[in-house]
This record gives sequence, C-alpha cells and structure tokens, in this order.
Amino acid sequence: MESLQNSAEEQQYTLYKDNSWPNKQESTNHYKSGVGGFVLVHAGAGYHSESKAKEYRHACKRACQQAVDQLKAGALAVEAVAAALVELEDSPFTNAGMGSNLNLSGEIECDASIMDGKSLHYGAVGAISGIKNPVLVAHRLLSEAQKGKLSAGRIPPCFLVGRGAHDWAISHGVPPCPSEKMATKFSLSAYKRNKRKMELAEKMDTGHNQTKKSRQSSGNENGLECLDTVGAVVVDLQGNVAAAVSSGGLAMKHPGRVGQAAHYGCGCWAENACNMNPYSTAVSTSGCGEHLIRTMLARECSASMQSEDAHQALLEAMQNKFIMEFLWSHTTESMCVGYMSAQDSKAKTHISRLPPGTVPGRSLAIEGGVCRLMSTASPCANEFFTLSTTLA
Amino acid sequence: MESLQNSAEEQQYTLYKDNSWPNKQESTNHYKSGVGGFVLVHAGAGYHSESKAKEYRHACKRACQQAVDQLKAGALAVEAVAAALVELEDSPFTNAGMGSNLNLSGEIECDASIMDGKSLHYGAVGAISGIKNPVLVAHRLLSEAQKGKLSAGRIPPCFLVGRGAHDWAISHGVPPCPSEKMATKFSLSAYKRNKRKMELAEKMDTGHNQTKKSRQSSGNENGLECLDTVGAVVVDLQGNVAAAVSSGGLAMKHPGRVGQAAHYGCGCWAENACNMNPYSTAVSTSGCGEHLIRTMLARECSASMQSEDAHQALLEAMQNKFIMEFLWSHTTESMCVGYMSAQDSKAKTHISRLPPGTVPGRSLAIEGGVCRLMSTASPCANEFFTLSTTLA
Repeated sequence: MESLQNSAEEQQYTLYKDNSWPNKQESTNHYKSGVGGFVLVHAGAGYHSESKAKEYRHACKRACQQAVDQLKAGALAVEAVAAALVELEDSPFTNAGMGSNLNLSGEIECDASIMDGKSLHYGAVGAISGIKNPVLVAHRLLSEAQKGKLSAGRIPPCFLVGRGAHDWAISHGVPPCPSEKMATKFSLSAYKRNKRKMELAEKMDTGHNQTKKSRQSSGNENGLECLDTVGAVVVDLQGNVAAAVSSGGLAMKHPGRVGQAAHYGCGCWAENACNMNPYSTAVSTSGCGEHLIRTMLARECSASMQSEDAHQALLEAMQNKFIMEFLWSHTTESMCVGYMSAQDSKAKTHISRLPPGTVPGRSLAIEGGVCRLMSTASPCANEFFTLSTTLA
Repeated sequence: MESLQNSAEEQQYTLYKDNSWPNKQESTNHYKSGVGGFVLVHAGAGYHSESKAKEYRHACKRACQQAVDQLKAGALAVEAVAAALVELEDSPFTNAGMGSNLNLSGEIECDASIMDGKSLHYGAVGAISGIKNPVLVAHRLLSEAQKGKLSAGRIPPCFLVGRGAHDWAISHGVPPCPSEKMATKFSLSAYKRNKRKMELAEKMDTGHNQTKKSRQSSGNENGLECLDTVGAVVVDLQGNVAAAVSSGGLAMKHPGRVGQAAHYGCGCWAENACNMNPYSTAVSTSGCGEHLIRTMLARECSASMQSEDAHQALLEAMQNKFIMEFLWSHTTESMCVGYMSAQDSKAKTHISRLPPGTVPGRSLAIEGGVCRLMSTASPCANEFFTLSTTLA
C-alpha cells in the first residue's frame, strides 16, 4: 500500500488486503475532535490520473464544504448529502451530471438515487437526460413520497426513468439543461477515442470471423476509459444518516441502460440506528453497475456492518458509545475521497491507490478513520461507510 | 378461509394467518405423482371478479401448458418460464402486455424481469412501450449477457428502460407492436373511470383547500381499480429453477415510473441449490411496487426459505430429499394461480380469496402443496414459492 499522507489532523487508518485475506496490517488513528455533523464523499472508482488529481480533490473539498455549510445551517442529513452531490455533479471532471460519459448514441443519460436513514424513504432516477443535477430529482421524489398518497389514493413514485423522469422533474420545478451543455471537451474527446477503440475491436472481431470467442477475449486490453459513480454519506447534528450517488454510467453504454446508481439497495443505503440495528449506517458504492446490482452491495455492506464482530470490538475498545467509524475501500486502481466534520475549517482529501504490482479487481484496499461524536442526539454509535469496487 | 376446492388431484395445503401470527391452522396434502418438471403461475394480486374468473383461470392454464410443452421438448427452466409469461402477457384480462393498465397520459409502459437460477443471470426492462411481450426483451437481455462482454470489453446491459429498451429490442429481433393495439376495451374504460375518480378527488381537495391533509386522507375510499404483476416459477427436468414477472404497473402511474417487476431482487428471484443453499428457490412477487421494492421481497423470501426451520422440518419429515414444496400467499382480496407438472395432462387453477370480513393488507392467506420429484438430476430438494402481497 502506498504510504498514506497521514498528519495529526487526517487521522486515518489503513488496512490492505490482497488474496491472502486473513493476514491484515492495520494501523488506526483516532479523530478525536468533537463532531456535530460529518460528511464523506468520493469522486468515483476507476483511474484518477495524476494530472487531474488537483481537480478531483477540489471537487471533493467543495462537496464537503457545501454539506457542512448546510449542516451548520440546521439542514438534515438528507438535504446535506444532496448538496454535496450537486457539487460533485457540477464538476466537469467527474462522471456525473456535467461531463458525464456519453452513451453509444453520443448522448448523456444519468442515474442517481438518495436514501434517508431516518424515514428509510428513497428516491431514484434512471437514464434521465437534460437535467444538470439528477440527484435533485431523486431528492424531490423522496420529498414528495414523504408527503403521502396522491389524489385518488395513488402511491407516489420512488423511481422514474427516461422521458417521464425528465417531464416530472420540470413539472416539479427542477430546471432543464440542454444536453449539449452537459458534455465537456473531455467527455467529447473520450467519446471519440472510445468510438475508435470500439470500431477497431469490432473490425478485428470480423477479421477473425470468430465473433463469439472474440467477444469474450476482447476485454481489458481494449478497455474503455472510465470513472464511475460519485457519492456521499452524511451524519447530521441529530445523528441522522443519509447517502446518495450519481452517475453518467458506463462509457458507450446502450441508450436506456440503467446501472446500480439508480437501483434500490445497490447504489446507496442509509439506516438510522433502531431497535433492530445497533449502528446507524450509510453506504455509497461505485464501480461496474451490472456487478454491483448483482451483489446488492450497498445494502449488504450495511447489513454486514451490523453484525461485524471486528467493528464491534473496535467500537467497544473506544469505551465510548458515541464513536463514528468511516471507511472507504476499492478494488479499482484509485479512488478520490474527501471528508469534513462540522468542527473542521476545511475538508481533507485523499487519493487512495492500489500498491504497484497489484491487479485491479483482485486486490482490495480499505482505509478509514474513527472519530468521537460530541454533540449528537443519537443514542447509539454511528458507523459509516463509503465504498467502491469492481468485480470485473 | 374459504373452503378450498380440494380434490385428490389438487392436493394443496392451506394455512391461514391473521393478526395473531403465532396461531396457525395447517393441513397438508402431498402431491405424489412423479414430476420431471413443474410450473406455477399467477395472474396477479388484486381483485379477481367472479365474472372474469373463467378468463383468469384460462390464462393460467394456457401459461402452464405452454411451459410444460417447452419442458417436454427439452427446454431449460428459463425458457419455459418465459413461455409461460408470454401467455399471461397475451391475455387481455391481466395487467401485463396486452391490456396493461394505462398511465396518466393514457399510454402503456411495461416492466418485466427474468432470472435463471442456474447461472444467476438476470434481465429486466422498465417503462418499455410498443412491445407486446416485454418478458421476451428481458429474456433476450439475459441471453445476450450470458454470451460475455461486448466489443472493446464493454459489459452487456442487464437493465434497459424506455425508448432505449424499445430500440434495443427491435435491433435484437423482438417485433414491435403499435401501442394502440395493446390497449383493450377493458383497459380503456378503466382508464376513463380512473381519470374521472382522480378529477373528482382533486376537485374535492381544492374545495377543502387543505392540499396536504387531503392528500393523505384520499386513500382507499377512492382507490383505483387494479390488478398487479403476473408471474411464474419453473423447475425443469434437470432440476434448474427460473422465475419471471411482467407488469403494466399501477393504474394512472406517472410516465416513466418503474415498479418492482423490473427491480433486481424485488420482482423475481431464482437460485439453484448449491453449497451455500441447501434448497433451490424461485420466487415471483405481485402487489404495490413501491412497497415491494422497499422490502426486496423476492430475494428476502428466497433467503428466508433457506433458513426456515418449519420448511426444513417439513421436508425432513418426508424422508425424501427429492421433495418440492410450492406455495402462494397473498394479503390482497384474491389471487389466481395455476400449476402443472410434466406428468399432468392439464393444469390446475385456483382463485384464492381472503375470508369474508377480513381486511386486505392486514390478513394473510398462504396456500401450497408438496410433490415428489422423481426424475430430476438435482442433488437437493427443490423449494418453490410464488407470492403476492400488498402492504398498503
């Protein structure tokens, strides 16, 4: 594992697992400043080039700041997490909102979802076009559902897609944005490069006249450039948690394709502590949607953290019930995260990379930190998780 | 519980639970004829009028027969379950394919999904228009995904929605169907009645000038007519299981709304027995999509059946590892099911109703049967489940 840029302030811990799972190296640092609210964001799994590292860090910092500003103004976790996502979507360097991957037809279609750990309400949009901030539509769906049934006993939708999602957004006051304004010079040139790669790969397939075999073998060597779903998890001053994700989806995806960012239990999960769950959990995933859907990763992580003895032991060792743990992990080459508490003057950011020589998809890096919650009204420990994986 | 029309051939058992859950009355009949393949279908939760009872039974019978014909011709479970769904979709009396509920704009948008218990592959479409048999598109997505990656290492989609789903279907040989041909005189007159109810309810809301309160109170008394998702579960001659569902969605839904029938883990689930799971399970759910999404009902049922002591005890009591249990349950007023084994000359059908005086949504009826598997290559017991619920 590359050496972490640890400072007294960052107080992260690092855990690196390769194929020999039982052997782990662990070093834990405690983040002891009082916390009345907290945000953790990530700019998507994938590969974060050194040349754009500054931009990813900036996007994460701005997202953290927005969420903390909202928390300080008394916003609930679900509102603060939406504010963080808007910043991540607005960055032209992330694959969400502005600058999203283009699909096969050269269009932008976005997925987003949000979950409120207090009410367990959920909202999602899939394959939505012409909206700069898809997370705001998901948030609005969640808010409308909380108001109860529609006229004649109709149940409000929690998941809208395509044209219908766009029209619902406009009729609920979300401003439209011409699709051509959402493409950036980066996303357009990536589209052209990807299209050439595809055409070349298909030409080779035809040349070999072995369509089926080629389909299976033309994998990583021709792999298209990609960055995945962005996301955030938030705990507010009352101890409520919320999570959200947003994504432009896979590069060169088929129009209408919906990935894990719009799938319940797959993209994000948030659940306040209650009788059944000793910990509050909030999870955000990033990576290849089709794999993350099949693993229902967000919900599975949340459930496993409730029963994970290791974490329980860690928390008990703190001899303090008001402890919050935050984690991120990835099997992709890199991941850019940011985090900030309501007491911090600015956000901390970190680009985590797999160690040299390891194979993305086969090795796993886990990093995180622990902090003490001082002014929360939550009766239980809060546990927190943001996660990235590719199983390809 | 109404008296079951039990005959020596039907060999069902009945279990009725009301709010006093721990008290159950149970009577079990064993279906002992040798079974080399089996199908269980349902025509959707909701209210099945006596006047159309014959039509619902016919649709279920035809669906069973189609699946069994396929099984006898050597088809795998996933192919047979798709064939059963096509029959259910083609019936103008079910809320799937032909005769689907119309949405707010008077259009038909369908959801469907299918899962193969052998490969665990999954395919789904959401809010798709102009396709008579949405399940065939879901099935084709599943088949294409099994062929491996696309050119340049792209991952094939497992979930497509809206216009993109329609275009993908056409480009993969699924025939289009003009939307106006999919509406029936029943669905068109239901749309007109529902629209009047909505307008009346909204007028009353405006009259009261209490938008928020009225929204919550204008529930069941103005409830729109509805029938829900249809579905089927199949076990083939090799003991593989598969499940599928298809739905026109809620009446008067917002365009672009996607329900549980297209949600992974919510609409259907199928999982062959393996080292981790002693039983093969296949589940199909029906009811209010927003509630079924939040409960992830299909997957939860499958998981709970793996650990359910009661079922294990029942199976062990049979002193035979080749026992298959099939169940259906509902909290809606009624449910129409059909089932048939490869040895049967015709399908059996049954309309299950809650007993008079019980409240839909608060009482639960569970019915099912047990049969011996004679010629299966599966090394384990098969357990099977088709389910309907509304939690509204």
